[in-house]
Amino acid sequence: MPGNTFGYLFRLTTFGESHGVAIGGVIDGCPAGISIDFEFIQQELDRRKPVYPGSTARKEPDLVEFLSGILNGKTLGTPIGFLVKNLAGQSSDYDDLSLLYRPSHADYTYEKKYGVPVCSGGGRASGRETVARVVAGAIAKLILKSSNIDIRAFISQVGSIVADLNLNNAFLSGGLRSPLGFLNEQMEQRALSQIAEAEKSGDTLGGIITCVIKGTPPGLGEPVFDKLQADLAKAMLSIGSAKAFEYGLGFSAASWKGSDYNDQMTMQEGKVTFLTNHDGGIQGGISNGEDIMFHIGFKPVPSVKMLQTTVNKKGEAAEITISGRHDTCHIPRLVVIVESMAALVLADHLLRNSTY
Amino acid sequence: MPGNTFGYLFRLTTFGESHGVAIGGVIDGCPAGISIDFEFIQQELDRRKPVYPGSTARKEPDLVEFLSGILNGKTLGTPIGFLVKNLAGQSSDYDDLSLLYRPSHADYTYEKKYGVPVCSGGGRASGRETVARVVAGAIAKLILKSSNIDIRAFISQVGSIVADLNLNNAFLSGGLRSPLGFLNEQMEQRALSQIAEAEKSGDTLGGIITCVIKGTPPGLGEPVFDKLQADLAKAMLSIGSAKAFEYGLGFSAASWKGSDYNDQMTMQEGKVTFLTNHDGGIQGGISNGEDIMFHIGFKPVPSVKMLQTTVNKKGEAAEITISGRHDTCHIPRLVVIVESMAALVLADHLLRNSTY
Amino acid sequence: MPGNTFGYLFRLTTFGESHGVAIGGVIDGCPAGISIDFEFIQQELDRRKPVYPGSTARKEPDLVEFLSGILNGKTLGTPIGFLVKNLAGQSSDYDDLSLLYRPSHADYTYEKKYGVPVCSGGGRASGRETVARVVAGAIAKLILKSSNIDIRAFISQVGSIVADLNLNNAFLSGGLRSPLGFLNEQMEQRALSQIAEAEKSGDTLGGIITCVIKGTPPGLGEPVFDKLQADLAKAMLSIGSAKAFEYGLGFSAASWKGSDYNDQMTMQEGKVTFLTNHDGGIQGGISNGEDIMFHIGFKPVPSVKMLQTTVNKKGEAAEITISGRHDTCHIPRLVVIVESMAALVLADHLLRNSTY
Amino acid sequence: MPGNTFGYLFRLTTFGESHGVAIGGVIDGCPAGISIDFEFIQQELDRRKPVYPGSTARKEPDLVEFLSGILNGKTLGTPIGFLVKNLAGQSSDYDDLSLLYRPSHADYTYEKKYGVPVCSGGGRASGRETVARVVAGAIAKLILKSSNIDIRAFISQVGSIVADLNLNNAFLSGGLRSPLGFLNEQMEQRALSQIAEAEKSGDTLGGIITCVIKGTPPGLGEPVFDKLQADLAKAMLSIGSAKAFEYGLGFSAASWKGSDYNDQMTMQEGKVTFLTNHDGGIQGGISNGEDIMFHIGFKPVPSVKMLQTTVNKKGEAAEITISGRHDTCHIPRLVVIVESMAALVLADHLLRNSTY
Repeated sequence: MPGNTFGYLFRLTTFGESHGVAIGGVIDGCPAGISIDFEFIQQELDRRKPVYPGSTARKEPDLVEFLSGILNGKTLGTPIGFLVKNLAGQSSDYDDLSLLYRPSHADYTYEKKYGVPVCSGGGRASGRETVARVVAGAIAKLILKSSNIDIRAFISQVGSIVADLNLNNAFLSGGLRSPLGFLNEQMEQRALSQIAEAEKSGDTLGGIITCVIKGTPPGLGEPVFDKLQADLAKAMLSIGSAKAFEYGLGFSAASWKGSDYNDQMTMQEGKVTFLTNHDGGIQGGISNGEDIMFHIGFKPVPSVKMLQTTVNKKGEAAEITISGRHDTCHIPRLVVIVESMAALVLADHLLRNSTY
Repeated sequence: MPGNTFGYLFRLTTFGESHGVAIGGVIDGCPAGISIDFEFIQQELDRRKPVYPGSTARKEPDLVEFLSGILNGKTLGTPIGFLVKNLAGQSSDYDDLSLLYRPSHADYTYEKKYGVPVCSGGGRASGRETVARVVAGAIAKLILKSSNIDIRAFISQVGSIVADLNLNNAFLSGGLRSPLGFLNEQMEQRALSQIAEAEKSGDTLGGIITCVIKGTPPGLGEPVFDKLQADLAKAMLSIGSAKAFEYGLGFSAASWKGSDYNDQMTMQEGKVTFLTNHDGGIQGGISNGEDIMFHIGFKPVPSVKMLQTTVNKKGEAAEITISGRHDTCHIPRLVVIVESMAALVLADHLLRNSTY
Repeated sequence: MPGNTFGYLFRLTTFGESHGVAIGGVIDGCPAGISIDFEFIQQELDRRKPVYPGSTARKEPDLVEFLSGILNGKTLGTPIGFLVKNLAGQSSDYDDLSLLYRPSHADYTYEKKYGVPVCSGGGRASGRETVARVVAGAIAKLILKSSNIDIRAFISQVGSIVADLNLNNAFLSGGLRSPLGFLNEQMEQRALSQIAEAEKSGDTLGGIITCVIKGTPPGLGEPVFDKLQADLAKAMLSIGSAKAFEYGLGFSAASWKGSDYNDQMTMQEGKVTFLTNHDGGIQGGISNGEDIMFHIGFKPVPSVKMLQTTVNKKGEAAEITISGRHDTCHIPRLVVIVESMAALVLADHLLRNSTY
Repeated sequence: MPGNTFGYLFRLTTFGESHGVAIGGVIDGCPAGISIDFEFIQQELDRRKPVYPGSTARKEPDLVEFLSGILNGKTLGTPIGFLVKNLAGQSSDYDDLSLLYRPSHADYTYEKKYGVPVCSGGGRASGRETVARVVAGAIAKLILKSSNIDIRAFISQVGSIVADLNLNNAFLSGGLRSPLGFLNEQMEQRALSQIAEAEKSGDTLGGIITCVIKGTPPGLGEPVFDKLQADLAKAMLSIGSAKAFEYGLGFSAASWKGSDYNDQMTMQEGKVTFLTNHDGGIQGGISNGEDIMFHIGFKPVPSVKMLQTTVNKKGEAAEITISGRHDTCHIPRLVVIVESMAALVLADHLLRNSTY
């Protein structure tokens, strides 16, 4: 039944319930001698909890404590154990719901699977589990950085506000995202106003995040099952509330003709050059050196403050109104999580491709 | 570097290049005592090569030979080795191309990764590798059948021909697909005429396949990384030419509001009942007992018969026109492959959920 | 490079250096609903540090803190994170040695492998890492207990003091070991006097531990590679200072004739009964229901207080006298560790055998 | 339940019953570009069936057929599928026994585990399964050869005939074994006469094999669980009839004092030099560059031609006399199998140590 380990050579095993003592993990397989930039890791963690209207603003510092595997700021090659304590338990927020299955949450399925009453507040199914992904992802980024691999995600949709993915835009050319991770400030303003509106009515929103990976060398990916896109898809769909993944042209490729779609090649300044990148940087399951680009779709936060129909644990029909602390829109918090999972996949495949 | 094993408790390891001696695999972890319906397995294999305009009609019987793990028609609990010989090698078809990288194929990336000249005709990257997936998937289906889990896929898009996924349609209610796996005959006729048109111009088409799994008990899926949808996404994205995966409402969920999206519950005839199934049968990474539904997007076949720009292995710009035997549209061949991969995931998770 | 995970369905991942912040681990795959007896776990941990002449008596309470996976005294089915803080660092004890490789320690090989200066005091190679094995082993024992599987080890040799393994002895019939884990009190007295003698001269001793597992049902073990004895051998040889493993008649079987060796069977009171148990409870890699018995040989503690020849990290010949806190004989501390590793193997195989 | 895969980066998955169609396997993770010496592989296979009095001399050519992963004599980096057909089925030899459990065989445990009648003749539990280990081991040896790692085993005991392991003997200094793999010709003569004697009385013999690995670089082994000796122990104990494993001084280390035992170091001609090798080339779970030496104890062949007590599958007491084709002493056949398993472990750890 174990399902809490990710990766083959750069392996993360995580633990922790949202209202337990701590969230943490063990990274096994991190090479020795990597310089650990603790400030960077903390910054990444802080990106998980940006402040904006309707965000839950759980007021925990989320300080990561490293327990092993690092000495004098460098990795030892031994497993890196770490944890982030849960300070703001507030489990009382959830007391009223303890007997009701919250719609489109994991309450019902966890109880069916494990046969034990589920922790209030989501327990292991809470988004708080992603704290461990971000810590490990930050270390993976440090490894990738030394190979000049750069991973950057941004919000390309929130509710009905959709980014214009014109490839000439500033962010994709190396510029900045908006403070909350939108493609640009204008989009952020429009999205925030839609979020504020949803907040007022007690409703919630979902969205789409786009991730671009620059600098990947050709050769990463292990066919036929551990293709690079297969592992990326698994990584992304393992994030709570993710419903969809596509890379390159994705679903829209289905309606293209081969002659238009194919990424034809030529030589430019002595180098193999692709005229287009419809394949999104991966061919035959292996990176081809072009930018890797993919999109992940997320459903709206299921905790709406409006009246919903549900059943209770005794098997009776009931009604529920979810109060307490919940995001109106969690997409701005997911940007760093998408990047972290991408970093875990890339670091793992970089190591897998380096053997022999 | 190993990447040719799929599954944790029901594990498939495959081997074989398209123009080598054989394609085959080993299934480890198949429970003892399963009755093997050899005729069914062969029928599944035959579904990989339907005859229609523009299909490559490789005239091999594709007979599977079982080498171990089965005695008197029942599994022994020991590994099941099997192979399908490659009879129609025809490697001469590929000779002219041997020095050119075919655009949007795996030629370039395989050579970059492995540093050896790639087999002509695709080698390991050829769709022929899926033969092994279908054999193992058929055995997985036999296991699932005894648990009343039924997996059926159909073509929901080819080129610009899109199925109307009205949930009241005949197939989803248990009726038949069209002979080639389309949602209905009318769609098949329209698609075949578009395929014929592409065939004439030497061009190719992609499409979308939808898969519906009925009868899954609640409880399958292993959070937080081996969520059921995460393993399904990996399985589907490991199929050659797949570019996208979504389950439930998928990408469109991004623009819904939580209050509309949530699958509210009630009691009907003493049973927990979901009023909608926007989540696609999986919540928190675990099946909830509702139909599991997902879609996979595939790019067009990259082997177009039209002139393309490319480079050769010496690093010179060149032109290529791919002749030889290639599908104009491979989507009808992928239906059984999608089902097979889904069966591998479900059988694996059924076993994973049965421990203790 | 990951090598810090043990088990397939009951999986332990550990971390921690001897003089770092903490030793800990994550147990993934523990079934839900297991009652956790915290007192028992602490008792098992305390068995790692019995007080006797020449023992290092590191005065740490070694209190285990559980961070997740347990609620109201029962397991949730989610990963169990835990740690034991390192309080008595005393790294100054090791300062003089920091530039010298201690003979028959791991100093030289760790530096060669990881290319970084090894933690003083053994770091990850210290016996202190076994703290995590004992915590996880104790939980495994709780699972096994509910299946009536009982694991008990005892010291069968220390230095030249050898136990008489007459099968009619009290311990093997369910009686008590000596306080320090010897087969009986008389042996303990003789061994303690030999330990005291070695202590006086600054020398050290090794020994042999015997483990008996009662109540194993037939059927545990997964041929051909994950045979029960193969996993037990790996488990035991992964313990620091272990040099040898044998089960049943072990090495001495090499000189028996088949006709004398074979465990012939008969029926007694309607049950299949083995007339002997030379095979040690495992045949063909699978338990047969008889007692499983095996022996593990351990070399003497390498930290002798006498003058030894060695080299320093600059590549110069040197001499070393190891002072500081070191066991004269670590065998009494290993009894619970042997049991813990056996419990991990048995719990894992119990789960592996329960699927489907 | 899967248990038929061995290795992490150099991975072998095997299949096949003794009287089924074939024995075979898949090697996944073999680097690309390795030159395959087919003649050498066949020679290794032939070493599995030396001719001597009392050997079963199954007259099969045991020709290996490679199905994938190799082109023009070089590996492609893709999985290597292979098989060896079972030609000399002779299942009639086993017919009388089909209802009786053969003592100290796997008949009883396989039936208890899998719940299906076991293949006659041992099925998956037959020594014939090792054919696949030898093929893969031979390829592993080719990889190791290019790193100058040399693995050689010899027979150090058969019945009561014990080799004198004086380290100055010819074989250990690079000379030859006897034709059947004994340390020298004189020992072979004495052993053969003891085997002939056992053959006459219908009895059987076991023995001990010693393996020496020269040329291992420092650094192989992945603490804390995948220590080099732990993986070697598992590999050896996974061989049918193996009962014991020890490396370096092994069990005898238990009675040494630390001051005598420790492998002290010095500098000689500018190189770190160990004065002794009691640790057997591995310290802290990692190779130190010295010769790796270990011993494996095997019980006698269980198929004796003398009358034995047993039970039948109906649960009745019975008697059995095993006729048919069986080795009187299988030790000469095991030499290449021990080397093959050692090669799998070393190749795997060589790759594991080469990442990053």
